[in-house]
Order: sequence, then C-alpha cells, then structure tokens
Amino acid sequence: MNIHLLLRVAVVAAVFTAGIQGQEKPCSTASKFGPGDQIGNVNYITPAKTLAATRLVTKGKAYRLGIETNKDTPAYGARKFAITVVQPDQAGGASLGPSKTSYNDDIITGWVGIGSQIDGFGHAGVDNLYFNCNKAADFTRVDGLTKLGIENVPAIATRGVLLDMAGYLGTDMVKEGTAFNRAEIEGAMKRQGITAIEKGDVVLFYTGWMKLLGKDNKRFISANPGLGREGAKYLASLGVAMIGSDTSNFEVIPFESGAGFYEVHQILLAQNGIHILENMNTEEMARDQAWEFLFTLGPARITGGVQAIINPIAIK
Amino acid sequence: MNIHLLLRVAVVAAVFTAGIQGQEKPCSTASKFGPGDQIGNVNYITPAKTLAATRLVTKGKAYRLGIETNKDTPAYGARKFAITVVQPDQAGGASLGPSKTSYNDDIITGWVGIGSQIDGFGHAGVDNLYFNCNKAADFTRVDGLTKLGIENVPAIATRGVLLDMAGYLGTDMVKEGTAFNRAEIEGAMKRQGITAIEKGDVVLFYTGWMKLLGKDNKRFISANPGLGREGAKYLASLGVAMIGSDTSNFEVIPFESGAGFYEVHQILLAQNGIHILENMNTEEMARDQAWEFLFTLGPARITGGVQAIINPIAIK
Amino acid sequence: MNIHLLLRVAVVAAVFTAGIQGQEKPCSTASKFGPGDQIGNVNYITPAKTLAATRLVTKGKAYRLGIETNKDTPAYGARKFAITVVQPDQAGGASLGPSKTSYNDDIITGWVGIGSQIDGFGHAGVDNLYFNCNKAADFTRVDGLTKLGIENVPAIATRGVLLDMAGYLGTDMVKEGTAFNRAEIEGAMKRQGITAIEKGDVVLFYTGWMKLLGKDNKRFISANPGLGREGAKYLASLGVAMIGSDTSNFEVIPFESGAGFYEVHQILLAQNGIHILENMNTEEMARDQAWEFLFTLGPARITGGVQAIINPIAIK
Amino acid sequence: MNIHLLLRVAVVAAVFTAGIQGQEKPCSTASKFGPGDQIGNVNYITPAKTLAATRLVTKGKAYRLGIETNKDTPAYGARKFAITVVQPDQAGGASLGPSKTSYNDDIITGWVGIGSQIDGFGHAGVDNLYFNCNKAADFTRVDGLTKLGIENVPAIATRGVLLDMAGYLGTDMVKEGTAFNRAEIEGAMKRQGITAIEKGDVVLFYTGWMKLLGKDNKRFISANPGLGREGAKYLASLGVAMIGSDTSNFEVIPFESGAGFYEVHQILLAQNGIHILENMNTEEMARDQAWEFLFTLGPARITGGVQAIINPIAIK
Repeated sequence: MNIHLLLRVAVVAAVFTAGIQGQEKPCSTASKFGPGDQIGNVNYITPAKTLAATRLVTKGKAYRLGIETNKDTPAYGARKFAITVVQPDQAGGASLGPSKTSYNDDIITGWVGIGSQIDGFGHAGVDNLYFNCNKAADFTRVDGLTKLGIENVPAIATRGVLLDMAGYLGTDMVKEGTAFNRAEIEGAMKRQGITAIEKGDVVLFYTGWMKLLGKDNKRFISANPGLGREGAKYLASLGVAMIGSDTSNFEVIPFESGAGFYEVHQILLAQNGIHILENMNTEEMARDQAWEFLFTLGPARITGGVQAIINPIAIK
Repeated sequence: MNIHLLLRVAVVAAVFTAGIQGQEKPCSTASKFGPGDQIGNVNYITPAKTLAATRLVTKGKAYRLGIETNKDTPAYGARKFAITVVQPDQAGGASLGPSKTSYNDDIITGWVGIGSQIDGFGHAGVDNLYFNCNKAADFTRVDGLTKLGIENVPAIATRGVLLDMAGYLGTDMVKEGTAFNRAEIEGAMKRQGITAIEKGDVVLFYTGWMKLLGKDNKRFISANPGLGREGAKYLASLGVAMIGSDTSNFEVIPFESGAGFYEVHQILLAQNGIHILENMNTEEMARDQAWEFLFTLGPARITGGVQAIINPIAIK
Repeated sequence: MNIHLLLRVAVVAAVFTAGIQGQEKPCSTASKFGPGDQIGNVNYITPAKTLAATRLVTKGKAYRLGIETNKDTPAYGARKFAITVVQPDQAGGASLGPSKTSYNDDIITGWVGIGSQIDGFGHAGVDNLYFNCNKAADFTRVDGLTKLGIENVPAIATRGVLLDMAGYLGTDMVKEGTAFNRAEIEGAMKRQGITAIEKGDVVLFYTGWMKLLGKDNKRFISANPGLGREGAKYLASLGVAMIGSDTSNFEVIPFESGAGFYEVHQILLAQNGIHILENMNTEEMARDQAWEFLFTLGPARITGGVQAIINPIAIK
Repeated sequence: MNIHLLLRVAVVAAVFTAGIQGQEKPCSTASKFGPGDQIGNVNYITPAKTLAATRLVTKGKAYRLGIETNKDTPAYGARKFAITVVQPDQAGGASLGPSKTSYNDDIITGWVGIGSQIDGFGHAGVDNLYFNCNKAADFTRVDGLTKLGIENVPAIATRGVLLDMAGYLGTDMVKEGTAFNRAEIEGAMKRQGITAIEKGDVVLFYTGWMKLLGKDNKRFISANPGLGREGAKYLASLGVAMIGSDTSNFEVIPFESGAGFYEVHQILLAQNGIHILENMNTEEMARDQAWEFLFTLGPARITGGVQAIINPIAIK
C-alpha cells in the first residue's frame, strides 16, 4: 500500500473519529473527509474494495456504457456540440515526407454536458455554495474551476450494481415522473437478489429509456423517471460513490411535489459528495442480467472541467 | 455469449480460414478481419482474454494513466485547447427555484490531440489511404468521419504489459532518439520476467519522460525515445491491440534513419489496425513494478472523432 | 498623396504598360496588378474615386446592409454558429472594485460564412489554384491563410450601384434560377437611369429575396436568382471591385446549364480578383430608390481569414 | 425622410420636453431617449449630420482603423482567439464538379474582445445594472443578450474628430497613466483648430501607442494613457455618440486615484449610452493631420453579441 493510499485511509479514520466527538460542521456542504477533500465518497473505494470487485467478473464480458455525442444528441438548454475534422497543411491533397503521410485531426467546439457524462462537484450547488464549503466566487474562473475540477477524480475501479427498475415495475420502460425512493430501491434489490449496497459502490438505475434515443429525442430530454429526494438521501447514507442512470436528466422529472430545481443534484453533488452519471447505456447489461460487476471509469482529465464526456467500462 | 460476441468470434474465425486459403489482399491497408472491419486488432480481445486479465489483479490498486489537458499542455503543431466555464442564465448571481440551485457548465474549444489520447484509425494514412482500404475522400467529412470514427472502439478490458525501457537501459529517462525495436523489447521483457506478449494485449512503454512534463515542455514535445519501425512490425506480428508510451509523440523522434514522417504511426494505424496511446502516465506503475495488469479504456464516443482524450484505468 | 497611394497608382500604371507590351500571363488566375497583388480590382478605388463617391450623398441617409448572424441564420452545408456570453470571474454575482463593476464578454464558436459576408480571394479556386497563381498547398494553413487573407482588404469607400432586378423583371421577388447576364444588367441600368458601371464600383443586385429570411429559410438557402457566367465576365470587363446581392448563394442557383459548381465564384474570385458580397440587405434602399451611393466597408481584420462577417454602410 | 427616421427624431424631441418638465429618472442608467432605447447617443446621428459629415471629405483618402486580430494580438485576461481553415469534403485534394471547384472555409473559436472592437451597452454595468435600467438577470443569456446586443447598432456615418494627445503633450507616445480630462481635451482641440465637439460626433484619441503593437505587447496591454472620469463626463455632456482610442484598455490605466475598476467604461456605456472603440489605429491619420472626417462603421450583426471586432473606415 503506497503513501497516497495510506493517507487516504488515515483521513477517513480521522474523520470518523471527529464525527464521534461531535465536531461541528463548518458549512452545510462540508465533506466527511475533511476540509481539503475534493473527491467525496470516492474516498471509500479502497484497494481491498477494488480487488474484491475484480472477482465479480465471471464471464469476461465488457460493456461500454457511453452513448454517442454529436450535434444530434439530445441536450439540455443551450448546450450544442460540433467537431471539425481538418487535414492540417495538406490542402490540395499534399502528403508529407517520403512515406507519404496523410493525417486528420479533430477539434471540438461543444458543451461538455452532452451524451454520457459525469457531473463533477463544481456542477451544482446551493445558492452559490458548492461541495465542501466552496463558494462559487472562490473557485469558478471563466477558464476553468480552480477547485473541484474533473481532473481530480481518481481512478475508479469498484463494485457496480445495476438496479433494474423496469423489471421491478413490470414494464419495458418506466414512465416519466416515476420517483425511485427507498422502497423502490429495496424492492428492486430484493427482486434481483442483491443483498446489499455498500460504501464505495456505483449504483446504476435501468429504466429502459435508451429505447427512446434517436427515436423520440424530445421526450428523452424533457422528462424521465429517476431518483427522488428520499432515495438520494438513502443511498447517501449507505456511502455510495457514484449514482447513474440511463436517462439524460438522471433525477426524476417532473420533479417530485415540493422539490426544487434539480434538487437531487444538489443533494448528491453538493451535500453528499456523490458523483452523478447520466446517459449510461445499460440496455445490454439489463438483458444479460449483469447486476453486480466491476465498474471502471477514467474521465478525461481536462483541468478545471465541470463535467466530462465519459464511456465507463463495466465487466461481468 | 450474446449475438454480438458470437459474430465477432465468427468473423475472426472466417478471416483465419480466408488467410489459410491465401486470399489476395484488396489493398495495402486491408484488415485481417474483413472488409467491414473498423476496429483492427481489438477483435482479439475476447471474453476469455478479458476474464483472464481480471485475474492479473492481485492488490486492487487502480492507476489513472491520463495526464491533464489544458491550455499549457504541450501540444503538436497548431493544436490549442481552452475550456470556458459558464453559469447559464444566472447573471448577477441569481439562483434557480425554491432550493436555490446554482450551476456551472463547461464548453470545450480545443483540439482533441492534446494530453493523453488514443489515435483512431482515421488519424494517419498513406497517401490518403487509411486503414482497411478507406480513402480519405470517401470517409473524411469536415463535421466528422463517416467511417473509422472513435465511437467505434469497443469496450477495452484486456491484459496490459508495461515495458520498463528506462530500467532496461539503466537510466532514469531514456534519451530522445532511442528506438525500441525487437532486441530492446525482448531485452526488457526478459529483465522483467514477462514471458510473452500476446494477441489482444496492450503494450505500454515506460521511458521516464513524464518527469519533463511542466518542467521542460519544449523538450517533451519536440522529441522522445520510442518505438521504431522494426519494433512496430514485430509487435504487429504478435497481434497486440494497442501500443502506448509515456511520451507525446509515441514513436522515436528524431525519426530513424531513412524513416518517413511519423511512419510508425502509419505502420500501426493504417497497415496493422493497432491503436496508439500517447502521454500514458505510468510513473507510479513503474515505481510499483506493476508489469502485468488489467487495462481498461472507454474513450468518449464522439461520433466521427479522429482521436479521443483518454484516461485509461490500469489495475494491479 | 502618401507613399502608399503613390505606390498603388504606380503599380496600376506599370501593369497597364505591361499589358500594352503583351506580357504573357504567368498562370490562369494571374492578377492584372502584378505578382504580389492580393487585392485585385480594389486597386481601382483611388482617392479621386472615393472623393467623387462622397458627393453621391444627397440626403445623408445611411443604410446598414448586414443581416443578423446567429444559430438560426440559414447557412450553407456544415456551417454552424454560436456565441457564448460569460461574466468572467463574477460567479455568484460578485462585482469588481469600489464602483461595483459588472461585465459581460462574448465568445464566438462559429463558421465565418454565415449571414452577411465578404468572400476573400482564398475562398474559391480552380483545382486548388487560387487568385494570382497562389496554390492551395502554398498558402493554406490550418490556423490561417498565409496569403490572400481577409486582413489585406484595404479601406473600401467607393461608388455603389444598386441594380433593381425585381423592378426590371416586374416582380416583387425574382424567381430562383433566373440568371443575370449582360442583357439583364444593361436593361436594369437603363430602366434606373444609371448611365455607366465603372472601374472600382461596387455593384449590388436587388432581387427581393430578403423577404424570405426567417419566413422560408429552406428556400432562401437552397436556391436563388443571381449572376450568371456571362454577366460575371461582363462586369469583370468593366473593372468593378466587388459584386453583391441580397441572396445567400450570390450566383444563380440552380446553376446555368453547363456551369460548374459555383463557377461564378471561380470567375470572380480566382480569375478576376473581384470580391463577392452575400446577404446584402438592400430592401430599404430599393424602396428609397437609392441607386447610386457611397459604399463603405471595413471587414474585421482577422489574420488569415477566408471570409468576414460584414455590415457595409451605404450612404445616399 | 422615412418613418424610421421621423420616429427617431420624434423620440429625441419628446425626451427633451420630458427633460424640461423635470421628469424623474427611473434608474441611475436610464436613457435620455426613453425606456425602450438601446442605442443611446447614436440617436443624435441624424441624416443632416451624416450629410454634413460627408462634406468633410476633401481628399478622398480612406483609412481603415482596424488592427489585426489573431492568436498573438494582445488581449485582456482569459481572452483567446483562433481561426481554423478547412477544405470541407475535399480530403485528398478532391475538387468539386466540372469546373474543378476548390474552396476554403474558416471557423472562429475566439473571444470577441480581441483587436479593434466596439463595446456594446451589454459590456459593462454597475452592480449588475446595465444601460437603460436593464438588469443582468433580465437580458443576459448564455447564448446571447436578449437586449442591448450589438446587432442593434444602427448604420454609423457621422463626423469624426481625432484629438492628437501626443502632439498636445509634445511627445511621440503619451506615458501610461496620463489621464485625459476637460483641460487636456480642450487644449488639444485648441492646438488643432477644432472649434467644437458636437452631438453625435465620434471622438478618437491619438496617443501614439500603436507603435508598441507587436513590439512590446506586454506594455501595450497592461496600461495606457486614456480618458479620465471628468473627461468622460465632459464628453458625455456634449452628446458625443462614440469615443475611441488607439490603446487596448481605452481608459487611463493605472486608474485615476480613487477611481473604480474600469469606471470610465461604466460612465460611458452604462450611465451615458456612449459606445467605446478600442485599438483604433490612427497612426496614419495623425501623420496626415486628418482631424475632422467622415467616420463610418457597421459592426457585424451577431445577434446578442456583447462586442464586435471592427474596422471602421474614416474618410478625409
């Protein structure tokens, strides 16, 4: 075990001790893992947990969870996306050098929050207060976040759990506005024979909504079933590291009665240090009943990034 | 085993049969895996191989191989990078809704080939002919490749092998211009006790060059040790799926005597269907002597992309 | 008269002498104004011509000819446009300094060829040969043209002539596919009492097509009436500096029988050194019968730019 | 005189009447020209004024005031600029159609506030209040301003006055931190024989600072001589439409003792409806002693734009 890991475990231990001693919370979004923490519940993913997760692999089948990102991918609000393919300095078809090299390069001019994505802790806050007492004015710079940037996410290799909400609710595609709270989560677990959700797990909800992609993009982007507020708090109490779904908005839309604007995002990202994964394509995993698996993710480390376009690999 | 996997295995089998029957190559960049193939040697990564690779994990330590991408990351030629962080429609600090939601979004305006990256098969060709007989004029569109796009890369979970070229050459940092060919590859393997490089493996070269990053970016970008032409053909003959290094140019620079402009890129990408991984940070892995491991990679699936900014996860 | 102007006149004189002596053309796109020329017929706009043009102003009414450029402006092919408005480092509504300064900035991520535009001489060529014997491979760089860039256009202040083709053809809006050739040009002139088109003039065609903008963008972008090949050669023979129209494609679409792909662009830009102005909104000028006027234009001087988004000012 | 002009004059008249009657100001940035006004003192540019300005032209010499905008142009803060030149769908040198058409297009990915520019009224405010009582939250959208956008600027053709501050101060290049206030403005006018600055004029300050461009960009961007607060209020009292200078920051930097952060921007843009023009290259005009002239400007009409990259044409 290297120094880095020892330190991480030590911090966790110290925090627990502090908790026992009843230390006061410095602000409403303070991290359990101390004032310098930028990774939240990812701290729970220890080598022991990673090692155990690799043993969940029994078939060697690897799934890519990313959907495609392009100009037609349904996207929230003003978000747009384009790539431009260029042949630098080869106008007229000129090739370069004795082996006649030709090459293409590509340029992105697009919003990151399109397609499959991870929300970093700089994405959503409460009245300009973000995770771990970080005020917007202190870390939000126009050319990148100076804290909570996506480059800080460590290597993710942990246990993944897929909750088949469509199966639990006896449908192919769960209706928009259906909130997943503790009862639904435990009901789905029981049906699938999943005995526990544990610290450091990545929990993915399967709703069947990927079936709409490219077929009814308007419906896909404007609403969906998803996690409710009580369910978010319940999963937070279990110490999960990340929560995802096969929908674009992740949380239930229309919002639950009395809920704020993307309040579940606030609960997870700002108040509990739990990353959110959107547009996770788990269609094939659901068909294969791949309920418990090794989940791996390395978001592109764009310095100061709010989010990242991702393509996690799940292995069963 | 699902239909998709069955088909892939069937294609591989068919191709072998074709090979035995001495079928003629339709063009100089034809794929072993048939006329429709877009993924090259990734075809060799079977479920059995993935399963076996997970058993290489003995400690549960996960490494992220990505370096950070930002405006200061050393980059080739005209490549530039910027992100812009915005607070959509919250001018003046306005928060949204009853739970006072604040949020940041981010926009990329940058070249993909900056930082840690995978080169897709649309990146380099020979006189406008790319992998598997694809002519530039046929698949290169200004708003995305219509074939060979990075979105086609399947889920990668396979055996990774780290070749410690610095250790083999008895130095902290291998000198620029040092070519790695068959002798050096086999020498390093022998020293590290690696008995074989196999079909579907990902081979990473460790040279110590990450030590320059942020310290001498000019040297880092302008030259490096790396794979030579003979070494590239040797690894191709072994059927590796991807080859990477901890340098920005990947192949040896200055080029070997008589070599073309980035000719090793041509040999791997165009002529052999082998992906290239650049700027893979393996410093910590080299220190840990993590020579054989589970390598996982899911590049963001940007439709028609030439390359992708990546952050593979290696697990030992 | 300053050195710059003296030199320009001297070049013109030298060229005429050369012409008289029957000097051979070095290539099919050679400039009348010598091997170093990058501005073509703009050379004809002398101070005397500018001074005379100011005397065409009799009412003091100034017209802006630019239409709006935004994401919905009809645009050719893959062209897209976006602006992003940011409040740098003011997240949470923070103002700056004792006088509580707030500010917005804006970022463009868009193709230049959208909305009202001038085509530079690097825009269209014949088989990779552009104006004045410039080969694409020699001046086209991915980060900007090294010759023929839009930054080279001098200050434009000259006589403008509006040809009312709708009036001439007795219609509100000329039908798509209607070609303007010598007969139509002279017919319109005669009807409007315009006695001559002269060296250095800017000629604008009024067709009534702006009426479609925002109402039938699909029709607006896919075809239009416009200049034909013979008309282009006729105006070139008169030495006009620039030719524009109130349509998006400028030249007649569908193309004339036997014509090449945007061949009128080739004739003007590559073969005659005449700039093209697209989407010039002359609706109000046509209503006012402002046929002869002072035309002024200063395109934003983006180094190496192919085109520019413009908003010329016509004064009557 | 058309309806539009009649209405504008009527509004001006009505506003004066209102002023006489002592009507209360609805907010600290209210326009003299009424609640719907978005163009401020540009209202003063009447046809009579434009006509008179054309008679200031005596030599026919036209000057372009724009400097070049590119990645090396000195720019404020996080501002960056790039263009990308592409040959859409011509990979491998393919030409299009029977006349072998080749073409380049260009894409901007850059901040607007680089190089010669006009500041729109959405650029600077006081504690999130912008010109004419517009609150940031009400009109600032991430994809464009919904009011005060640069597309609203009418055709500008008016009297221009160049104040030679370098000549007045007996130097080639005025020292940074030198404030131009009423005394300096009147002193320069007297020296140049300019009898009056009038309603609707465009006033440009010449300081000699363009000599630094490309030679000492660091000094050029970090400070400059320029308009002071009292001078700004004085010019506002005269009803000028726009004020510019040959520097990048326009106003005096370091700021005057006790002044806020870019407070002169606030005084002109927010409190007086006067546009600001930066990086106006008047070197040649100063050499020619072109003190009074016709000034024309048509900023590219990008919908919702905060600023515009410009290249005004001055004619003497």
